Amino acid sequence: MPRPLFTTDQYVAGILAGDRVMLGRAITLVESSRPEHQALAQEVIGRLLDRSERGADSFRIAITGSPGVGKSTFIEALGTHLTERGERVAVLAIDPSSAVSRGSILGDKTRMERLSASELAFIRPSPSGDSLGGVARKTRETILLVEAAGYTTVLLETVGVGQSEIAAHSMTDLFMLLLLPGAGDELQGIKRGIVEMADLLVVNKADNDRVALAKQAQAWYRNAIHLFPAKPGGWAPRVLTCSAQEQKGIAEVWEAALAFRQQMTDNGLWTDNRRQQSQYWLREAIHDGLLRAFHAHPRVRERLATLEPAVLAGRMSPFAAAEAVLKAFWEAEGG
Amino acid sequence: MPRPLFTTDQYVAGILAGDRVMLGRAITLVESSRPEHQALAQEVIGRLLDRSERGADSFRIAITGSPGVGKSTFIEALGTHLTERGERVAVLAIDPSSAVSRGSILGDKTRMERLSASELAFIRPSPSGDSLGGVARKTRETILLVEAAGYTTVLLETVGVGQSEIAAHSMTDLFMLLLLPGAGDELQGIKRGIVEMADLLVVNKADNDRVALAKQAQAWYRNAIHLFPAKPGGWAPRVLTCSAQEQKGIAEVWEAALAFRQQMTDNGLWTDNRRQQSQYWLREAIHDGLLRAFHAHPRVRERLATLEPAVLAGRMSPFAAAEAVLKAFWEAEGG
Repeated sequence: MPRPLFTTDQYVAGILAGDRVMLGRAITLVESSRPEHQALAQEVIGRLLDRSERGADSFRIAITGSPGVGKSTFIEALGTHLTERGERVAVLAIDPSSAVSRGSILGDKTRMERLSASELAFIRPSPSGDSLGGVARKTRETILLVEAAGYTTVLLETVGVGQSEIAAHSMTDLFMLLLLPGAGDELQGIKRGIVEMADLLVVNKADNDRVALAKQAQAWYRNAIHLFPAKPGGWAPRVLTCSAQEQKGIAEVWEAALAFRQQMTDNGLWTDNRRQQSQYWLREAIHDGLLRAFHAHPRVRERLATLEPAVLAGRMSPFAAAEAVLKAFWEAEGG
Repeated sequence: MPRPLFTTDQYVAGILAGDRVMLGRAITLVESSRPEHQALAQEVIGRLLDRSERGADSFRIAITGSPGVGKSTFIEALGTHLTERGERVAVLAIDPSSAVSRGSILGDKTRMERLSASELAFIRPSPSGDSLGGVARKTRETILLVEAAGYTTVLLETVGVGQSEIAAHSMTDLFMLLLLPGAGDELQGIKRGIVEMADLLVVNKADNDRVALAKQAQAWYRNAIHLFPAKPGGWAPRVLTCSAQEQKGIAEVWEAALAFRQQMTDNGLWTDNRRQQSQYWLREAIHDGLLRAFHAHPRVRERLATLEPAVLAGRMSPFAAAEAVLKAFWEAEGG
């Protein structure tokens, strides 16, 4: 049985007061595909953005790495490091494979037992969705909600399939890549382009008999990142080692993250980057909505059904067909 | 002074008769940004597609490689090999940098002196344009024209910057990558992803004291391509060596291309691939036209000018703003 909805005022007041239950319910609205839930969610977000400056102070961090690198353990270690210092931490995820399974990552809070027990932490599994675009959009809106609720650090986990990293990159301030002790990225199963996006590379599992291997990976990546073009603002990506299991090196990872934040703030790129990201999401959302409405239009469907076969058979130019479909659409709309 | 236009009938008859001057003039229409030229070009292409089955028999081949690999010399060698066998060959190019310079590649036919002297060859420099999308579209339409004029082999040169290779890949049957003798692709300046797209890899300049190095590159790439996922239809990319300068190994390259064609035809993927490409171009052209009209709409510009600053400042959700802009657009259109 669906739970009853609250009023916009109730959601807004609850979230601003840091009420976790109300925050969870608002995220459920964001994740819902029902139009009335979406409308309410937009209203709540609109009101929160209008009244809260909290997002401006937040730190959004993407954390990725191949399966087996220990992402959950690392996020638990880093999150606990922060909550122990009184920081409020939200843990979110983008997992496009969650379409069916409703969140194959972070679905099980027992994997972050210690962190999820903290009053200062808020953990939410990946939204489900029939496309990465939909999942990413829901996550982007959830970030706005958790920030309005006072969570100052957002840790956004991704599953390492490439496309979700690009989405995560487009909504975070810092991109962190977890690595395994040992050899280069070909062997670690890291998709091309991911290493290049990283601001911070962290070799995890530097413990027991793997310390030497971790140092080896550190040296390899320090060398490899020199091959990439320089980052905007002159930030030189750092390569660190840690053991999330033994809680070693986590403080150093956080210090490096703060150094990044300081440098980006000093050179003005922090705000620039956020503005560019907002602009990117605005364009994406407009184009997405426009194309969806266009392709749902009866006249468009009708014309496409007639013309597409001719194009596919090579009897009509794709460009002439496109023009005809657009013409039908404008005429139907204009009339 | 602009040259006078012909009638649709004149263009169509001229092209079907293989009149090179008329073909060139029709391509000039395709490349023009003037609406009346565009309308005429579309009419000509539409009529040709309707009346000519020639495109179905053509072989469209993309040829790319880093600067210095000897693309022009190779194309001249391969083209001459074909014309000597009575084959009619068109050489086109996609060069997005030609926006300003009007074709930095193939602008100078003296680089293919022998081939351009042949009655059976038609060489056209890259169209200019303010975007890769525009340049690619013009090239796609030019392919239709040269095929209608009876050129059975289309060699499409690209400059190796990554994006133009993707465009070339989307309008050809076979993707050929030229390589230099020597070490792996990192050192050859080949963009990631390009090697993976190749159906045929050809190490050029296997002459004089570079024969051993060419064999080395051949072995390296034969090994490297095993790492990629298998191609549709089970085609195993071949790695050959040649010397375009000395006209050695060119016949073998052509035999490999024909073997590819045979296998793709036998397994039905040849036609499938062309259909998919046509569908891709249809969608691209529709979306391109739709977005362009949308962003040129006064109501859209007006709403975006008001809402975008709020989004960039973080005071409004990108998704709420997108919805408002779309709403303004539909209201204006519907009214």
